[in-house]
Amino acid sequence: MRIELINTGTELVLGDTINTNAAWIGQQLAALGLSVARQTIVPDGAVIGEVLAEAAGRNDVIIATGGLGPTNDDVTREITAGLLGLPMDVDAGVVAKLEAYFHKRGREVNQATLRQAMVPRGAKVMDNAFGTAPGLYVPAALGAERGWACHFFLLPGPPRELKPMFETGVVPVLKALHPAAAGREVLYLKVTGMGESDIVDHVERELEAMAEAGLEMGYCIGKGDVDVRLAGPGEVVAKGAALVREKVGEYILSEDRRVLEEVVVHLLAERGETVATAESCTGGMIAGRLTDVSGASAVFGYGYVTYANEAKVRELGVSAELLMRHGAVSEPVACAMAEGCLEVSGANHAVAVTGIAGPTGGSEEKPVGTVFVALASKGQATKCRRLFFPGARDRFKLLTSQAALEMIRRRLLNLTLEP
Amino acid sequence: MRIELINTGTELVLGDTINTNAAWIGQQLAALGLSVARQTIVPDGAVIGEVLAEAAGRNDVIIATGGLGPTNDDVTREITAGLLGLPMDVDAGVVAKLEAYFHKRGREVNQATLRQAMVPRGAKVMDNAFGTAPGLYVPAALGAERGWACHFFLLPGPPRELKPMFETGVVPVLKALHPAAAGREVLYLKVTGMGESDIVDHVERELEAMAEAGLEMGYCIGKGDVDVRLAGPGEVVAKGAALVREKVGEYILSEDRRVLEEVVVHLLAERGETVATAESCTGGMIAGRLTDVSGASAVFGYGYVTYANEAKVRELGVSAELLMRHGAVSEPVACAMAEGCLEVSGANHAVAVTGIAGPTGGSEEKPVGTVFVALASKGQATKCRRLFFPGARDRFKLLTSQAALEMIRRRLLNLTLEP
Repeated sequence: MRIELINTGTELVLGDTINTNAAWIGQQLAALGLSVARQTIVPDGAVIGEVLAEAAGRNDVIIATGGLGPTNDDVTREITAGLLGLPMDVDAGVVAKLEAYFHKRGREVNQATLRQAMVPRGAKVMDNAFGTAPGLYVPAALGAERGWACHFFLLPGPPRELKPMFETGVVPVLKALHPAAAGREVLYLKVTGMGESDIVDHVERELEAMAEAGLEMGYCIGKGDVDVRLAGPGEVVAKGAALVREKVGEYILSEDRRVLEEVVVHLLAERGETVATAESCTGGMIAGRLTDVSGASAVFGYGYVTYANEAKVRELGVSAELLMRHGAVSEPVACAMAEGCLEVSGANHAVAVTGIAGPTGGSEEKPVGTVFVALASKGQATKCRRLFFPGARDRFKLLTSQAALEMIRRRLLNLTLEP
Repeated sequence: MRIELINTGTELVLGDTINTNAAWIGQQLAALGLSVARQTIVPDGAVIGEVLAEAAGRNDVIIATGGLGPTNDDVTREITAGLLGLPMDVDAGVVAKLEAYFHKRGREVNQATLRQAMVPRGAKVMDNAFGTAPGLYVPAALGAERGWACHFFLLPGPPRELKPMFETGVVPVLKALHPAAAGREVLYLKVTGMGESDIVDHVERELEAMAEAGLEMGYCIGKGDVDVRLAGPGEVVAKGAALVREKVGEYILSEDRRVLEEVVVHLLAERGETVATAESCTGGMIAGRLTDVSGASAVFGYGYVTYANEAKVRELGVSAELLMRHGAVSEPVACAMAEGCLEVSGANHAVAVTGIAGPTGGSEEKPVGTVFVALASKGQATKCRRLFFPGARDRFKLLTSQAALEMIRRRLLNLTLEP
């Protein structure tokens, strides 16, 4: 099944908006064992007609996004109907929804908006739960007479409107058109604490040997983690996953796409335990990631951003003498920060980081990118790791926060802290 | 001048990588008064030939990214030469650079990598400062004989290799080909504290009246701010900018693309003042943004993430009675947090936030999205704003941190805090 993706939107070609829909749709199709043969982006307006006609001639499916709104430039609906020779009818259901939408907001539906209720005859309306523009599915049979036997999916551009519509309106049709998708499974094993090339070294050869049995694999690099994507027939995916678990099991943080902060908050909540944070170079990012998770308040109450040495002394009880002797970026200070944080917060665990984010402040002994991450837990020995993340400041902060959260995860699972 | 952009890369169509190059190139071209007529993305491999041939027939300029690496799938170079009927020569300069690159890493250049030294006869090599694959510029004259009078720029895919090469290798050629770019200027006025539609209401009509004189305008929506982009002849841009400053001046936070946290850190540093943070619902994001700025340590020493009520009492001295009477999400508690933070940190300014990020925890009186932001400064009355940011948790945190930082900026500039 050949599929092309067409994204329309002047904001996309001007660069005012990054095209995140394309990657998202690519992933959804990959999950079905399908892929995009070509993707075309054009500004709003009549040029969409040229591109649709080209694409209709060489594809089984066209997925078009954007151009369904109420302005003059939004012409995808009309151009598709014109291309296929389909008359447009007013859809009473859509009109009723538009009226309800506007009345709720104390306004009348205007004429421009009512254009959104025009539907090429025979096409199916896909509800838009988050906006006014409905989506349309035009089955291939409708255009066959003119020689365009191609399925058209016309979707709105805004991601929060497009994504639910794709899941509820497009995926079921594609599954019906492509029965091979039925027995197919996709699994994402999210790995942290090792780079893509290390993962490849551990598992790729043996996974590749499963390709004949239908296993497809890929890597999707995230923020501090890597998704190993396994796809294919259910039993082959299960075998591949078992191999990955055997080889790099302790580095797998989730198999359901949860990110590290979610896993840590959930593990703490299951155990009824709490964590506190004492951050220097990460400046609050660890606390920020923990509190990104809904329900974090059950496991996190206290965070300290002790950027100044004085703050380390006054808030965490780090001794001034220790700071003087070893410097703020040192193992003894990281451990003292973690232990002080454990004490003042009363939490079960306290993680502390101190390092040199750069671009200035490095030395020969401790270059920019050097960081110490310490973890103190009630009734256990405090542990510290020295790590090195040279490069940009934002990446340094991200990788340091990842290492700190991973240290908590490993302690909660009784894994060694120095993998 | 008609320009098409072609991005090759299987990772792009699979959705493993978001195509950020396209938006970036779109912005660079817009700065020159140029735009992308169409953008095409295809997987690695021979399909690039089909797309290049189509595009060469209808464009003055083609910018292609990706497919210049050492693997079998990297065929952009060879296919372009084939299309234009140009023989390939080994470029001694590129060979020398590849050898130096590998020797520095203690390795020998392999045959696959040496393919990168093949150059279509007459094409110009563009140096790659951050990788092994050089870029190529094939002037239109070289393909004219075969009827393809189109300028080809072949660039590597990784953004950190592509961007400097585009700036040093592509922009000068485009400027020479498009003399209208010469007298042209682009200015970004970064606005915060008002939405895009409010900005439009204030300035669009009068700016549109300058279109005849050559003013182009656009909006680029950022994280909590909006860039008003003005482009055109220098004196017209200056006039447009003067108008924007007159109408919404106090909301303009920078004219050099600096974001709010940079502006706040720089303003504090100029004044030799410091700020401390007391965060509940933002969970460290305000501290995190401040410490994203290099040099933040001069103006920021203390941050508190008092997620638990107990932490508000113990760390900031908020009275338990006040928490009981008004609830943690209230103006009195926000003010007490800010004043307590000012006291314990000894900073010149202290900002505090307390709110309901959701998805749970809302009430009729204080629905999810309600937040109080308070600012205490030495020798000045503490001020508090009640704001409402319904919607997703990450957006709530972002907009709340933006409002808090903006309150600091406004105080430092002696603007009213409740705009």
